[in-house]
Amino acid sequence: MQASPPHHRPALRAGLLGFGVVGSGTHGVLQANRDTIRARAGCAIDLKMVATRTASRARMAADAGVEVTQDPMRLARHPELDVVIEAMGGTTDARHCVLEAIAHGKHVVTANKALLATHGEEIFAAAGARGVTVGFEGAVAVSIPIVKTLREGLVANEIEWLAGIVNGTSNYVLTQMGTAGRSFAEALAEAQALGYAEADPSLDVGGGDAAHKLALLAAMAFGGPPRLDAVHVEGIAGLQAADFLHAARLGFAVKLLAVAQRAGGELQLRVHPALVPRDSMLGRVEGRMNGIMVKGDAAGVTMYYGAGAGSRETASAVVADLVDLARGLRDGGRVRVPPLGFHDGGVRPPPMGTMEGVRLRNYLRVALDEAKAGPRVIEVLARHGVQAVKGVQTRETLVVLTAEVAESRMVDAMRGLEGMDGVRPGAVRLRVEALA
Amino acid sequence: MQASPPHHRPALRAGLLGFGVVGSGTHGVLQANRDTIRARAGCAIDLKMVATRTASRARMAADAGVEVTQDPMRLARHPELDVVIEAMGGTTDARHCVLEAIAHGKHVVTANKALLATHGEEIFAAAGARGVTVGFEGAVAVSIPIVKTLREGLVANEIEWLAGIVNGTSNYVLTQMGTAGRSFAEALAEAQALGYAEADPSLDVGGGDAAHKLALLAAMAFGGPPRLDAVHVEGIAGLQAADFLHAARLGFAVKLLAVAQRAGGELQLRVHPALVPRDSMLGRVEGRMNGIMVKGDAAGVTMYYGAGAGSRETASAVVADLVDLARGLRDGGRVRVPPLGFHDGGVRPPPMGTMEGVRLRNYLRVALDEAKAGPRVIEVLARHGVQAVKGVQTRETLVVLTAEVAESRMVDAMRGLEGMDGVRPGAVRLRVEALA
Repeated sequence: MQASPPHHRPALRAGLLGFGVVGSGTHGVLQANRDTIRARAGCAIDLKMVATRTASRARMAADAGVEVTQDPMRLARHPELDVVIEAMGGTTDARHCVLEAIAHGKHVVTANKALLATHGEEIFAAAGARGVTVGFEGAVAVSIPIVKTLREGLVANEIEWLAGIVNGTSNYVLTQMGTAGRSFAEALAEAQALGYAEADPSLDVGGGDAAHKLALLAAMAFGGPPRLDAVHVEGIAGLQAADFLHAARLGFAVKLLAVAQRAGGELQLRVHPALVPRDSMLGRVEGRMNGIMVKGDAAGVTMYYGAGAGSRETASAVVADLVDLARGLRDGGRVRVPPLGFHDGGVRPPPMGTMEGVRLRNYLRVALDEAKAGPRVIEVLARHGVQAVKGVQTRETLVVLTAEVAESRMVDAMRGLEGMDGVRPGAVRLRVEALA
Repeated sequence: MQASPPHHRPALRAGLLGFGVVGSGTHGVLQANRDTIRARAGCAIDLKMVATRTASRARMAADAGVEVTQDPMRLARHPELDVVIEAMGGTTDARHCVLEAIAHGKHVVTANKALLATHGEEIFAAAGARGVTVGFEGAVAVSIPIVKTLREGLVANEIEWLAGIVNGTSNYVLTQMGTAGRSFAEALAEAQALGYAEADPSLDVGGGDAAHKLALLAAMAFGGPPRLDAVHVEGIAGLQAADFLHAARLGFAVKLLAVAQRAGGELQLRVHPALVPRDSMLGRVEGRMNGIMVKGDAAGVTMYYGAGAGSRETASAVVADLVDLARGLRDGGRVRVPPLGFHDGGVRPPPMGTMEGVRLRNYLRVALDEAKAGPRVIEVLARHGVQAVKGVQTRETLVVLTAEVAESRMVDAMRGLEGMDGVRPGAVRLRVEALA
């Protein structure tokens, strides 16, 4: 590099909106690893200002020698900042502050997936028009550089599909249900007691958080804006411990998967629980860890694994986005990598598919009043075009693995089982994901 | 982005040294995914010229409409090229061509780990002085963007250790020995028959190739130049099928690991076979696949998995390096990310450690002439400060797992077993790697 040593270079001046888990973690990592970060960035990264209205946090920031303001908009407009780190959470004030920062020519770094999944198109367009960028490495699987991997690492590939375990809270609950035989309620209570789940866990266990992340991953992999509206979402609240045991006997683990897949010229976006082979790379992602598998036409299948939450883990991603900006500081900082990885018009993404078109194998558990109803269930499935490739009947429980079949047929078949003689209501159906 | 549409932009002009597996694969991927690559890069990537002396390859290139020269130096100097892709292999001519291209102000992209592990310091310094860069994503675990991950993704972290399965040929042989009960010779012959191993497999099974990759990974993770000379290297040629069975019974798989680890203020660089828990993420990396685990102080443990060889798989990495360059074309292409990820002086890497300081658990298999010699072996180990935490004796074979112990003590203990009454020569010792 033709350049003077780091200490002669201007610093990247950052402002931080919010000083909670993400904000204080970012400040902590910038302090702890200052020298190494400077050597890698080529200049210092200075946290100049924090905006928070929480007195205790304001004190923490002030004690750390950082200027504190109670007015986030003042920070968003501040003329002496190169980048604004949005760590306030939520989608309303965060949107206003981020758009204000962009309007004032500042780059933005955020780990707020809800914000970008819902307002990303508007925010990315504003950033593009103003010639600044939006870094969001921390928005998906925080510790894993999956955003950089999709935007830069796998750029040579047409992506065929990606499948991820991207919600650590759900994965912790599912792991407890699978390994400790806990009920959903017990496992969730345990997660809450450990601080792994929030008081209102609906966004995590309902699949909404995974859907936010999937919308962002799919936009980077296939082009187009984040399409949260196109994601089919099913959560894990309804799952029963019994099915984890049957799945285990069949060699499967139960995971909440976020899948984006090209099929029949359409793009399927779906979040739902699914059986995956226990010995597969995704099957081994346990507890609060995240794992994302990507199939590209050149690279083949690659997989990325790491913590999906945590203060320092998220800071690792936020600081990586800051270093990207710092490394561009000396040449004017023109944006080289667009937020979603595609320049200008980009590519036309495939039209969005619906669940009806999804073809998967399925797991069925049917409670019987009389053992001899079992064969009749198999017949009814067959009549709906659903082939049972494996059936295990123990007294009055029938467990079936089906051949690959269209979702629509499967739904009809399940209806066909309702009210059958000798078959109790509430048959359980889970999808089986065969991807890698 | 304030920018005109892609077709109004200048193209990145690339020249290709060699048109074998890597070269033709790169050309093929650039052709097949041209539109997507252009949309991501912001401009076209044109392969202008190929240098090859192989008539059949020259015809292939010419048929593809690419200008062909027999003189690699002419290509390296060609005024109409922005980047030279070195895909000729070897370290002598390749070094001359790469230095010539750099001297003429061209960026270089290469997947040649032997070249960079042996001449990297010279080549990176020349590139830095000339203000160009050297991309080598394809040099390690081709399909996985591990170079980008270390240079850009995990930049916030002090790296504590990394451990990888980075030689697909060895991993295929080890997987066959472990799952199919093959001998080393049988498994290797099978790999050669399938084209997974070369006629002279010594660089792969001897650990040299893994050492090349480890030297590059460690330089990016810990700073300093590649230190191939500091890597302790042991291959897999001596491994016996029996130990794979005993390891499996104990819950371990046998892998050829490349490890870089901070310990006691030193940096240990070592390539050797090791037992790893079969259900760990590294334990599940089978066949020709590669997997690299990295422990950072902020991100925690993250892991990266994918194919470690192949024409299109390598091209995926080479083209990613080209897209990085193309994305910088419109702003003068100043180098933002130095080849090894550190600017100027970088950081001072820890002093290099030796094997003596390595502390690991160990696996022992001792053949006995008489069963009652078993307890005496345990005694001798204890006398050398090696504690047996698990001992399994079946008739005249004693298998022992030791507690963590310094390598030097273990070596002494093994010597202590030599010539013991009732103990046959040739006791087997394998290290047990506990990392994640």
